[in-house]
Amino acid sequence: MPSVYRARLGKGMDKITLGYVSSMHSDMQILEYDILGSCAHTLMLLKCKIIQKSDAKKILSALNSIKEKDLMRGGESEDVHEIVESIVIRKAGLKSGGRMHTARSRNDQVSLDMRMKMRDDILGICGGILDCTNLLLKLAEKHRRTIMPLYTHMQQAQTGTLSHYFLAHIDALLRDFERLESTYSRVNQNPLGAGPVGGTSLPIDRKETLRLLGFDKLVENSIDATSSRDFAAEYVCNIAILMTNISRIAEDLVVWSSSEFSFVELSDKFASPSSVMPQKKNPDIMELTRGKTAMTIGGAAGILSAIKGLSTGYGRDLQEIKPKVWSASDTAMGAIAILGASLSSIKVNDGVMRKAVEGSYMAALDVAEQLVLDGMPFREAHKITALLVQKAHADKISLSKLDLRAIRAAIGKNSIKSTYVQSVLKSATASASLRKRKSAGSAGFAEQKRMIISRKKLLAKLHKKHMKQEKKLADALNYTSARISKVLK
Amino acid sequence: MPSVYRARLGKGMDKITLGYVSSMHSDMQILEYDILGSCAHTLMLLKCKIIQKSDAKKILSALNSIKEKDLMRGGESEDVHEIVESIVIRKAGLKSGGRMHTARSRNDQVSLDMRMKMRDDILGICGGILDCTNLLLKLAEKHRRTIMPLYTHMQQAQTGTLSHYFLAHIDALLRDFERLESTYSRVNQNPLGAGPVGGTSLPIDRKETLRLLGFDKLVENSIDATSSRDFAAEYVCNIAILMTNISRIAEDLVVWSSSEFSFVELSDKFASPSSVMPQKKNPDIMELTRGKTAMTIGGAAGILSAIKGLSTGYGRDLQEIKPKVWSASDTAMGAIAILGASLSSIKVNDGVMRKAVEGSYMAALDVAEQLVLDGMPFREAHKITALLVQKAHADKISLSKLDLRAIRAAIGKNSIKSTYVQSVLKSATASASLRKRKSAGSAGFAEQKRMIISRKKLLAKLHKKHMKQEKKLADALNYTSARISKVLK
Amino acid sequence: MPSVYRARLGKGMDKITLGYVSSMHSDMQILEYDILGSCAHTLMLLKCKIIQKSDAKKILSALNSIKEKDLMRGGESEDVHEIVESIVIRKAGLKSGGRMHTARSRNDQVSLDMRMKMRDDILGICGGILDCTNLLLKLAEKHRRTIMPLYTHMQQAQTGTLSHYFLAHIDALLRDFERLESTYSRVNQNPLGAGPVGGTSLPIDRKETLRLLGFDKLVENSIDATSSRDFAAEYVCNIAILMTNISRIAEDLVVWSSSEFSFVELSDKFASPSSVMPQKKNPDIMELTRGKTAMTIGGAAGILSAIKGLSTGYGRDLQEIKPKVWSASDTAMGAIAILGASLSSIKVNDGVMRKAVEGSYMAALDVAEQLVLDGMPFREAHKITALLVQKAHADKISLSKLDLRAIRAAIGKNSIKSTYVQSVLKSATASASLRKRKSAGSAGFAEQKRMIISRKKLLAKLHKKHMKQEKKLADALNYTSARISKVLK
Amino acid sequence: MPSVYRARLGKGMDKITLGYVSSMHSDMQILEYDILGSCAHTLMLLKCKIIQKSDAKKILSALNSIKEKDLMRGGESEDVHEIVESIVIRKAGLKSGGRMHTARSRNDQVSLDMRMKMRDDILGICGGILDCTNLLLKLAEKHRRTIMPLYTHMQQAQTGTLSHYFLAHIDALLRDFERLESTYSRVNQNPLGAGPVGGTSLPIDRKETLRLLGFDKLVENSIDATSSRDFAAEYVCNIAILMTNISRIAEDLVVWSSSEFSFVELSDKFASPSSVMPQKKNPDIMELTRGKTAMTIGGAAGILSAIKGLSTGYGRDLQEIKPKVWSASDTAMGAIAILGASLSSIKVNDGVMRKAVEGSYMAALDVAEQLVLDGMPFREAHKITALLVQKAHADKISLSKLDLRAIRAAIGKNSIKSTYVQSVLKSATASASLRKRKSAGSAGFAEQKRMIISRKKLLAKLHKKHMKQEKKLADALNYTSARISKVLK
Repeated sequence: MPSVYRARLGKGMDKITLGYVSSMHSDMQILEYDILGSCAHTLMLLKCKIIQKSDAKKILSALNSIKEKDLMRGGESEDVHEIVESIVIRKAGLKSGGRMHTARSRNDQVSLDMRMKMRDDILGICGGILDCTNLLLKLAEKHRRTIMPLYTHMQQAQTGTLSHYFLAHIDALLRDFERLESTYSRVNQNPLGAGPVGGTSLPIDRKETLRLLGFDKLVENSIDATSSRDFAAEYVCNIAILMTNISRIAEDLVVWSSSEFSFVELSDKFASPSSVMPQKKNPDIMELTRGKTAMTIGGAAGILSAIKGLSTGYGRDLQEIKPKVWSASDTAMGAIAILGASLSSIKVNDGVMRKAVEGSYMAALDVAEQLVLDGMPFREAHKITALLVQKAHADKISLSKLDLRAIRAAIGKNSIKSTYVQSVLKSATASASLRKRKSAGSAGFAEQKRMIISRKKLLAKLHKKHMKQEKKLADALNYTSARISKVLK
Repeated sequence: MPSVYRARLGKGMDKITLGYVSSMHSDMQILEYDILGSCAHTLMLLKCKIIQKSDAKKILSALNSIKEKDLMRGGESEDVHEIVESIVIRKAGLKSGGRMHTARSRNDQVSLDMRMKMRDDILGICGGILDCTNLLLKLAEKHRRTIMPLYTHMQQAQTGTLSHYFLAHIDALLRDFERLESTYSRVNQNPLGAGPVGGTSLPIDRKETLRLLGFDKLVENSIDATSSRDFAAEYVCNIAILMTNISRIAEDLVVWSSSEFSFVELSDKFASPSSVMPQKKNPDIMELTRGKTAMTIGGAAGILSAIKGLSTGYGRDLQEIKPKVWSASDTAMGAIAILGASLSSIKVNDGVMRKAVEGSYMAALDVAEQLVLDGMPFREAHKITALLVQKAHADKISLSKLDLRAIRAAIGKNSIKSTYVQSVLKSATASASLRKRKSAGSAGFAEQKRMIISRKKLLAKLHKKHMKQEKKLADALNYTSARISKVLK
Repeated sequence: MPSVYRARLGKGMDKITLGYVSSMHSDMQILEYDILGSCAHTLMLLKCKIIQKSDAKKILSALNSIKEKDLMRGGESEDVHEIVESIVIRKAGLKSGGRMHTARSRNDQVSLDMRMKMRDDILGICGGILDCTNLLLKLAEKHRRTIMPLYTHMQQAQTGTLSHYFLAHIDALLRDFERLESTYSRVNQNPLGAGPVGGTSLPIDRKETLRLLGFDKLVENSIDATSSRDFAAEYVCNIAILMTNISRIAEDLVVWSSSEFSFVELSDKFASPSSVMPQKKNPDIMELTRGKTAMTIGGAAGILSAIKGLSTGYGRDLQEIKPKVWSASDTAMGAIAILGASLSSIKVNDGVMRKAVEGSYMAALDVAEQLVLDGMPFREAHKITALLVQKAHADKISLSKLDLRAIRAAIGKNSIKSTYVQSVLKSATASASLRKRKSAGSAGFAEQKRMIISRKKLLAKLHKKHMKQEKKLADALNYTSARISKVLK
Repeated sequence: MPSVYRARLGKGMDKITLGYVSSMHSDMQILEYDILGSCAHTLMLLKCKIIQKSDAKKILSALNSIKEKDLMRGGESEDVHEIVESIVIRKAGLKSGGRMHTARSRNDQVSLDMRMKMRDDILGICGGILDCTNLLLKLAEKHRRTIMPLYTHMQQAQTGTLSHYFLAHIDALLRDFERLESTYSRVNQNPLGAGPVGGTSLPIDRKETLRLLGFDKLVENSIDATSSRDFAAEYVCNIAILMTNISRIAEDLVVWSSSEFSFVELSDKFASPSSVMPQKKNPDIMELTRGKTAMTIGGAAGILSAIKGLSTGYGRDLQEIKPKVWSASDTAMGAIAILGASLSSIKVNDGVMRKAVEGSYMAALDVAEQLVLDGMPFREAHKITALLVQKAHADKISLSKLDLRAIRAAIGKNSIKSTYVQSVLKSATASASLRKRKSAGSAGFAEQKRMIISRKKLLAKLHKKHMKQEKKLADALNYTSARISKVLK
């Protein structure tokens, strides 16, 4: 039995080397962008009179045919740029096709392709976040009065509503949206025309490709344009943050799906039933979301580590960044779509949640606050309430069942009246708590109502802005298509 | 010899446990913010009539005295919040001091303190970036005509100017500035009043503390306000990106300081001479910058990993995030200040750089571009030029010294005239290359001039905006000081 | 209000630079090792006649006095090596003290100090693992018959025993022990005498310092000895793995402490009660363990990233590795000591655990296995059992309560007898399951007994080996002490 | 233009979900192991009389045919285990095929498959390390007298030999070998028979599958066997360490290939020439090694982060670990093979290296050591030598050219004779330095010779041991093949 390694060596060093250096596999994700970028570059060369119309026509026609045929198995090619150019040269002839790469280098080209794919991915993920938060908002509306315990340290801490939980995560996801929008502005910049590192003496017009490809501005400095990958690090970091936010919901759903919590039941589509115990369902998909989050964190660390300490100027180390960017995109798109769909199809066990509230002593906090409202110092109110809880807990009764003797013992030397305390205890129900809870952003009923309305407006506004951004890009690309058609006619 | 571990066990479990849980050491960095936050909270409680003026006076006076005395060695305290409150209670008495923590919990308080420190750190680092880019811009101006090779793969690739190098890094650093500004908007939000997780029934006014502490908006949802740390992850990720950008300059300086390159000489202040070979200087400080970059990357990975999969609601895991945030700030502030100072005091060996250009065949690229300008397809121009270079290299002469025979051999069947090619070769000097290089953002002389002017304006604009932001914060805190004084009178 | 950054700049660049480059703070942890290493080096120089006895005496006496006085506040020093040497020179005079650093460089010295501290840390942590697994084993013995559900996907999966849980983690921790033992062999090697990078022409004897300092072998190659930090990366990676193992127990304890699970109660020493609900206890310390795990992961990533792509030969980047190593040690020692103590003082709610088993349909698996034993194909047995469970679940009864009609419906066309199936269902109790479960390493009663005995023997063996290793090191150091005393006499 | 995300949503949630959960792509790497493991499991079931010979025959025959046909495009399957079983059931019929999965679960099965692939990978990589170190040793032999500068901080520090450089990296790589060997012992353990989490009541024999599959021991505890992935974390951490070691050689080669250093020239096979400057070659492949190192670091961080805080018992998060393990293996195997081949085909510019030594003042260190040998305190010798160097450097002459006046000025009040110093200076040549350098493990000629012999012996020993290990595994698998054939007859 030859070892894997020896078997591999058997293939010969050439194959090993090609396998090691090739980015073909991951490059298939930027094929369409490479072609589009090459079309725009050709249009610009024509407009600047660096190439002639007949050459442009042949090049564009060759590029177009790649799109259609998709005969892309470049066995021996190292990357997609090489294979696209070789096909163009084969189809358009060296005399014409050999002009396509004029005033361009692989260094500005690869940055271009990455940026074009990444801006699409960002728009896609931002769209996904808007869809998902919309679904969460619907759930919040539905569960405005679904009472549940709020947790700290996985311990029941305060009476709350399920809507409050959903609203919390809407706000977090909208920060992810903000971050990605901000990243978009640094991704959607045109590096094309920077050459290998120092620009060119040919009379190109970088603003023309900017327009044709729908970019917002130039990555002006040619060293910077070819050598920097901070935009990729930023993107993957922001995806990692998005994923950690989603992973916390995933964790909650795993815990809430346990037989001991039984707060929710995932639909069969998003859980795997056991083959012997069909009533049990494993929350696999939420676990995968946690696991994929970890790998995105690793991806971010890997990218940053690759950039660290690189001398200025393009280095092949940067090639390794691409697959991590693609897989961050895949992870985020999948996770956000599945999160929305899973939550929309979840079964909420309202009764179990409410029972958890009622079986607890969380009312204690409300009692203490009532005493503070009546002028008692906070620390003293806490002390007295704690004694009341201890007594009730020892007697295995609820706070509202404590008799006056027990109350007096807890009050001690404080001048407050025990009958008054008793009335406070009796009125400290879960519903009362949520009616009285009025601080801005709190779990109280009134705030739920207000926040749902406010977030609805916000989402509508963001959606409109997002659509506008998608349209702007689509318009540019449609214009370019028209320009290509005109040359080809 | 007892092992370290056993020696440690000898201390008893209580001490081990306290050492394990305590955040006192790292909390000393937020002491002043904790006090300031407590002052604002007290002013708000007073305004909302939750506490009385006499109580507020005692509390504020106690808080003020902590600031002055600084007798902060809370041996047995777990955190700074605990010790501040205990001092206030001791000084102001339980009846008054015991009211300070009303309608507040450690969960919203710790998020508040972090955010207050972090916004100061961001402003500081942004100020540092502006200072540093200003210094780089001065260097760019000085070296507009300092000719040097531009590198890809650490191989000489194109003729360039040193100013172009500095301008590239100015642009990269300004993206870091943008990122941090964007992060600032998510950091400078008020979590205070969110309580442990679900808000409060006490009639607090969260917008009042927002105003008093100079925040831009509320972290509204109380679960989100206490449980989220995406703002910290985002900050440290952005610092890690900033550091990777700086680390590349550090790497360049290490390489350029080598005896083999000898492009630059660091000043004695920022390098360590050897004790036996005093003319040699180790670029230690730049190496430290690379090393510290790596640790910031680790810090970012650690923070993201800590948040991943946490159930919603505050968990003590989050405590471990703070020290990594502080050390990211320290690293960035030190690195940016030292980068500016090191570069300002650097000795540039113009002659060595120019000689590197002249000893190379980088002119080949310019020759090829000239041929393309004359209508030759790019791939063919490259081929002919390559043959010329090979010949010159074999004969150990420069391109301009090639005779007509050699040129004809390289041209082959192409119809271009060898005398014309010879004239192209002769005119392909470094200066000519940089005069002709005119594409936007290129290393050519004209673009250097234009970009320096443009960046000067940009820096002035950013500086103005930055000062305004600092002033806005200062105004709010001055107003709060005045409010405190008024109560204390 | 000047920004933090500006305030810092106010200190002047000298202070900023010193703060940036200094490792004094973290070096305090290797002071004693630096002194000990210097003593051994001096003894070797004397033995090899490179220095004279009178010089050695003065140097050793100076080094000894540092140990005693501990007046170590080297305000302006960059590192501990510098300050120790400067004190020696001050005390012993330049003529003698100036000879201490002969045939040594800071590069071999810092590797030496790290290795000496790290081997102590490893021994300490290994000792801690042995103590902790001993405590876990006692718990396993105590809970050999404590029935509980075993989980996959946080879903109840099979009937088990609590001892099985503890035994699983003992085995995992013993792999951590193995890993650290293996790392010890690569840490406990002598780099001293490698000089700055290429060795020395002075007639030193590296094997002498090896003996004096209790090392097992030389890091022979002088480049390797000064430039490599794989031993540190390996150590922190192994600590990170240890911590992830511990973090899973921490997670279990957090979940099991929730009111919904209520499987265990942490003692007050290792949990924080709420101020209003004193019966609730937050499992803070276990959460900290999770958080600290994340930071150790970040530390490992940081160290690896610092080493990546460093040119061969000592670089100052390596300085940043030290603090991450120290904090990995601190974390591991604290976590392992606290884990043992927390678990030893835990209250187990056997009744709740058993009820969870009895309220579930986990017996289904046992029923299916019984059918397989009787010849039914596995997939069919699963199918029939699943139908039985569905029926029982729909009727809200336990499997043993199913009547013959229901059983017949589930069996369908299979030839098995329904009365036989009924008897199988009735006998499928939790205890029966654990009596029948006999596969090697299973949760069954018999395997618990066997494994406890086997692990007891294993732990005794490991303990003996560990003590031997500690003694070997202690013997070497005692011998060195004696040698020092002899010179000093 | 619909966004990528919307285009994706167009596919419908079912496809998105399948794409998200499926591990089919990465599972193709364990197909052969899954089949082999299933064969062994079947043989064991037969031996333990849990299934009958006729069933075993059908199952094994079906499994065998998968191997042959390889018709593995399981469109809708989630993983390889599912598809293999479904093929077996289809081919062998439910009555027989439905018995294959008896007493097994996907949880022990996936751990089994991982371990089988990983042990092959480890053996392969260890074999690769032995091959590579053999090549390095040959280079060391060849370059025993090739004089070069040794560097610290990328500054020339001491005269050395190229062989010393290669020997340093041999020692580092052999530590990687050791680490992987140690990991092998924890990977090569049998988890099969652990069931989903708690074992089985069926009379299986786990030691039988251990023997059939060539494992060294059981992962005994069934919880541990199914739930732990520390073996995978350990493996990838060790690969990351190996890669950081290799990445340092890669960095050296990149720097040494620069025009400024010109120490070496990579062969065309392992470098990419520029299209215009064919004499320049980009060291792409070494840059890729650095970049891949970074991603392996990220992979390790990702795996550790995935495990952190997981509750005990199998969770689907663990699925995400597999692809990171596979790609760590691919990276390491490629990198080590390419490293050996690249170095073997490198052109070393001895003359340039020697000139670098001679043009430096590195002899200063040797001069200082000579003075120390003559009794001067180390610090004083350094001071005097430094003055000599300064003078020589100012006068742009070598040390050996200093006249007596200059020497006397440097000596100052010291009683040493200037003529003696002059003779020391004159005799301080590079060769003399390396003849005198005799400390163990130093760069001196004698040590080179000794170490080369010693490493040759060591490599032979390790190779023998490695072959034995490969044979042991092969023997077991051959035995199993024979057993299968016997059943099939």
